[in-house]
This record gives sequence, C-alpha cells and structure tokens, in this order.
Amino acid sequence: MAKASKTAKVLIGATAFGASFFDPDIRWRTQFSAPDPFVVVVHSGKTVLFVSELEYERAKKQARADEVLLIEKLREEFGLPKMAPASAWLPLYLKREGIDTLEVSPFYDTVLKLSKDFDMSIPKGPLFPERAVKTRDEIGNIKKVRDATEEVLDMVFRAIRGMDIYEGKIFDPKGVIGKKDDFLTAEVLRSFMNREFISRDCFCPDTIIASGNQAVDPHCIGFGPLCANVPIVFDVFPRSTDNLYWYDTTRTVVKGILRPEALALYDMVKAGQSLGLTMIKDGANGKDIHLAIDGMFVSAGYKTGLQKALVDGKEVMMMQGFFHGTGHGVGVDIHESPRISWVDDTLCENMVVTCEPGLYYWGIGGVRIEDTVVVTKNGYNNLSRYTRELLEL
Amino acid sequence: MAKASKTAKVLIGATAFGASFFDPDIRWRTQFSAPDPFVVVVHSGKTVLFVSELEYERAKKQARADEVLLIEKLREEFGLPKMAPASAWLPLYLKREGIDTLEVSPFYDTVLKLSKDFDMSIPKGPLFPERAVKTRDEIGNIKKVRDATEEVLDMVFRAIRGMDIYEGKIFDPKGVIGKKDDFLTAEVLRSFMNREFISRDCFCPDTIIASGNQAVDPHCIGFGPLCANVPIVFDVFPRSTDNLYWYDTTRTVVKGILRPEALALYDMVKAGQSLGLTMIKDGANGKDIHLAIDGMFVSAGYKTGLQKALVDGKEVMMMQGFFHGTGHGVGVDIHESPRISWVDDTLCENMVVTCEPGLYYWGIGGVRIEDTVVVTKNGYNNLSRYTRELLEL
Repeated sequence: MAKASKTAKVLIGATAFGASFFDPDIRWRTQFSAPDPFVVVVHSGKTVLFVSELEYERAKKQARADEVLLIEKLREEFGLPKMAPASAWLPLYLKREGIDTLEVSPFYDTVLKLSKDFDMSIPKGPLFPERAVKTRDEIGNIKKVRDATEEVLDMVFRAIRGMDIYEGKIFDPKGVIGKKDDFLTAEVLRSFMNREFISRDCFCPDTIIASGNQAVDPHCIGFGPLCANVPIVFDVFPRSTDNLYWYDTTRTVVKGILRPEALALYDMVKAGQSLGLTMIKDGANGKDIHLAIDGMFVSAGYKTGLQKALVDGKEVMMMQGFFHGTGHGVGVDIHESPRISWVDDTLCENMVVTCEPGLYYWGIGGVRIEDTVVVTKNGYNNLSRYTRELLEL
Repeated sequence: MAKASKTAKVLIGATAFGASFFDPDIRWRTQFSAPDPFVVVVHSGKTVLFVSELEYERAKKQARADEVLLIEKLREEFGLPKMAPASAWLPLYLKREGIDTLEVSPFYDTVLKLSKDFDMSIPKGPLFPERAVKTRDEIGNIKKVRDATEEVLDMVFRAIRGMDIYEGKIFDPKGVIGKKDDFLTAEVLRSFMNREFISRDCFCPDTIIASGNQAVDPHCIGFGPLCANVPIVFDVFPRSTDNLYWYDTTRTVVKGILRPEALALYDMVKAGQSLGLTMIKDGANGKDIHLAIDGMFVSAGYKTGLQKALVDGKEVMMMQGFFHGTGHGVGVDIHESPRISWVDDTLCENMVVTCEPGLYYWGIGGVRIEDTVVVTKNGYNNLSRYTRELLEL
C-alpha cells in the first residue's frame, strides 16, 4: 500500500530587500511586508510564517498567517548554530511535520530541472564575489544617491526646526511636533520625502521615521504623530531609478530636549559607531568589528536580549539592546556582501559598507547612527557629510 | 583520469517584471534592464545574454554582454515549440557548449537542498491558482491605482494640448512638440508623471512614452523630443506603494494630425481590441482571443514577422506587426496569470486582465490600446473610463 503523502507549498522570500515587495505570492498570501527575507509554508490548511526576531512582533500583529514562528527559536530547538540558514532549519521543520512532498513556485522550475542533468555548485559567498568591490563609476553612482539623500534630509530637518511642540499629555512621553489638531506625522513626512526623492530620480518608499518606543522595533517604519523630547530615528535608503544603485544612512535626532538616559544612549551608540569606523580597513574581519561594538555596549551595561518592558500597563518580554548586524555592503542591492555581523567576512579596498550600530530600550527609545563608507587600504572614506553629533531641532 | 569539468554561472531572471530591477547580479553583470525575464550564462570568459524578440535589438545595443542570443531562434534550433520555457532550451544550450557544472545564486541554496530530501512538485500553472481570481477588496485596490493613473494622464494630455508644434525639419518625420530650443522630451514628461504618481502613493518609474519609430520596439520606454503628427504610445503601469497592487493601461495619442496610414493602423488596433473585449468572459480561452485578433490583423493585410525596414538609410530586418501577447492578469504582480496569448488559459469570473493588442511598423509607428478589465459571467467590466477613440491633442 502506498504511503499517504503530505504536501506543503513552500515560499522562499527572494531578495534581501523587501521579500514581499518582490515576491507577489508571499505578499498575496500573508499581506506582510518586511525588509528581510522570510519563509512561508502552507500545509494542513494553515499558513505558517517564519521570521527573525527583527520581524516577529510585527508579523504576529500584521501578517495574515495561522502561525508565526521565530527562526531563532527553531534553530535552538534543532541544535543549529545562531546564523544557520533556511536550508538548514527548513528541512528539519518539514520532516517534523511529516511532510514529504513540496510544491514550489514555477519560478524554480528551470533550476530544479538543471539540477537533474548538471552538477550544481552553490558558492558559499555571493555568485560574483567581485561585485562587492566597487569601481570608480559605481562609487559615483552611489554618491549621486548620497547627494539626493542629504538634500532631502536638509529640507526635512530645516522644516522640523521651524515647527512648534505641542505639550499636551495625550502622547507618550510628553509633547508631539506640531500644533494642536495639526501634528506632524511619519506618514506626511514620508510622503513629502518620497516626492522630493522622485524629483531627484530616486525611490525611497519605506523611509523609517520612528520616534520614541516605535523605534525599539528597528524595522518598524513609524506611524502617526512624531513625539518631541525623545529620539527620532530617520533611516533613509533610496535607490536611483536611473543607475539603480542604493545609498543608506541613518540619523537619530530630537525635537526639543532628550532626557539624560536617552542622551547617554545616543553617546553610547556614537561611541560604538566610532569604534566600528576606526576598525574598518582593507583586511579587517566584519565579525571582529561587530563583536567589538557589542562588547563595548555590554561593558558599559547596555545588555542585549529578551528583557522586560511595560507595554500598556502589561509586563511583556521584548528584544532590547543591540540585536541587528553592524553593517552590510551597498551597491546595486541594498543589503549585499560583505557583512559586518556575527559571521566571518573580510573587508577589501573599495568595498562600500554601512556602519550602523544601534541600541533600543523600551521607555527610552531607539538610537541608530549609520554611515555608508568606502573601505580604503588603511581606513575608510565616509561618503556621509552629515554630522554625527546629536541634532537638536 | 577525471574528465575535465567545464563550469558556467547561470542567472535566471527572477520575476516577470523587471528582472534587472529585482535581480542585482543580472543588473550588475549586464547593465541591462527589461520588463521581461531573461537568462544570463557566464562561461569560458564570456557573458551570454538570452532574450526574446521583444528585447533583442535593445539588448544588442545596450547590454554589457559578449553575446546576445535570441530565445526564439534557440527554440527553433533545438526543435522546441514556440513558447518552450528556459527549463527546456537552457539545458540543451549548456550541453551543446560542453558545460557540465553550474554555479547558481546562493538564493537557490534552500530549494536545491530541499530537492534532495523531498519530492518536489512544480505546478504547471501558478503556485496559488486562486490568486488570479480577485476579491472585492483586491479590485478596490486596483481601482485606487486606476484613479491615480487617470488623473495623471488627464494632466499630461491637457498639458500637451496646450503646447505648440515646432515644424522644423530636424526631426523625423516633421515637427516635435514644443518650441524651438524648448522641446517636450519623454524624460521630462516621465519625470513629471513620477512626481504626480508618488504624490498619489504610486510608483511608476518606467512609463513608456514613445513616439514615431521608437514605439516600434514595444519595450523601448522612449527618449528625447516627442514627435508631432505621429502616434505617441503612453503605456502606464503604476504600483501602489500602499496596497502594492498594479494597474496597467495604454493610450496612443497624437499631437497634430496622423497620416492616413497611421490613422488606419489606429483603427485596426481599435477594432482588434474591440474584438478581444467582446470575447472576454467567464470560460473563454485566452488563446482563442489572441488568435482571433491575430487572424483579424492578418486578414486585413497587417502581417507579423521579420520585415524590411529602412533605418538610417540602411535596409535591415526587423520584427514588425503584432508580436506580443494580447493580455495578462494584473494584481499584486504586473504580469500574472491568466495569459491571453499563444497558450491555453481559461478566464474566470473576477479575474482582472488586460486587453492590449498593438501593431508596429517602421515608418508608420506603433499603436497599442490597453484596458484593464474585470472578467464577468457574460462579459467584462472595463476599469478604464478613458475613451478608446484617438485623442488628437
């Protein structure tokens, strides 16, 4: 008697940036958007979404899925290393569920058919390692997007500087930018920035504009009125619609005055970023840089991990501290090789990388400072011409 | 003695829309952009680009590739059917070149590893066939983009109506839109439309604005001054940055007066589109619709195929006539199931499809008229509220 077969549909987010933007099946099935790849398995009548800690809380709230599973937890359950890829944990999950047949997108047809007749070799790193080292023209392309970015940020910060603070107590912790019944929202500002970017032949739909506790989720793009007297994270990553290269920068600013613990957080992140920048040079290992910054934060008492947070009067456990990588390559893709994170990866002259440590604590807020730099023989050229001092608008 | 191994890197464009926009490796390696998927093979020190007839001429001019091969020609050489996919012709090409080992993007890692331990089944149609049938909400999402599109087109056509024609003889055939030293270009107009679209939370970077002979290549997005007294094709396909649904429409207009043969071309395409629209209903076969329009064109003497064209005083062979499909589904992807083309595909109630026949002849120009419609039990609801009569601006 033939064994009963159990089938799952498997969807693997295609790209580092915006799996749901680029993979229509995933978007359609889950209604979820995130700037990192994620996996969806549809089996036994349910939709299961697999996301990292960076997406977990939002996915649980926003995604149309019957189950949202944390990839970090799965890795632990299966005894896999911290950064084990989907190719390691996904087969183990599917077997545990008793699944033996997989349906995948017709898009995979060609590569699966090729794998029957040819030896398939998947490089450990990127398919074209030489893509990470930029030519003068490519750096020129990135600089054009840098110019647009800094022009738009100048306009935004100038506008905020000219605005009032409404000190009503309806918003946490005290005060929002704007006047009564006319608050400045993340949506309005993002829309304004979109128009300015498109006028400069750039596209930047998902600028992060997150104030106060919103910024504690580093991938929350921000919504509603912008709070005064707390850090506001602007993470801006436009792509040229002309040359298709990206640029990536983050500044954390404040309208009004920061409380001492938020000011200390800012100074800590600035020190961490300075340490990272001083370590960037030809031959450096990204992992060393990331661990050095992480170590600096821990030594100063800024712990990373699941920690208590009082949300709407209820105590919950939440990822806090420094829980994303320090940096990544930038080019014709927004997140590309090399990585400055938990994995070994060597920086070489003329690679273009970000250095963007951050610290996030519920009740204080989030701080991230990000520059995009060109790696040189003995250090780096910072493409950013923006001050790294706190901008008090 | 071990047989010497010959390796190729194989890149398969990921998505129907904008393989190069979404696949950074392909873009980086070839510098080529096209709205259809294409394949790249790097072997023996050369970059080989495989494109369809719709991209062939542009690819030869624009792509950074050592060889550009026509997929239609390869299919013929290998005795494959007209629409045979890459999974059919690519293995045959690779074997002919003596290649036995393939390197593919690390992105395929997961699916290739899964294929070792699980039965992999690739659906003949889409992974989620039910995605093609739209809910009321989905149609609402598409209508929002439709509204933005028609507002922007209104502005553009109104603006052109108010402009002059410069009758200088420097442009083919006679006259361009604008004044001496101040011509209206496709680039300026596209940029204006981009700003208007982003103000309406839509993104539309590659609007086709092609006049005269430029439009004979249906995927040429158009460049330089817009000619008067010849057809101008506006193919507009924005995506909502909010709900991520697309809309797709094409109007062919003229500034000034069309020559009789261009007017006849317009009337022919309009009749073809009318025929297509009348055949659209629940249960109809896309192939029947496409072949009916094709047959109508042929009966009227509008032939399709490689035909002579006098380009810069030199006689060349060029694809002319009606050499693209009649239509495609529109949703969270710009080109999705079902197809109205050379393959069998059944239309069902509440599918959203385009109907966009076109005719293209060097020396006359290109005409395409495209509506996006909802399939109903006995016909269709046309989402477009734009006239299909020739707009003489």
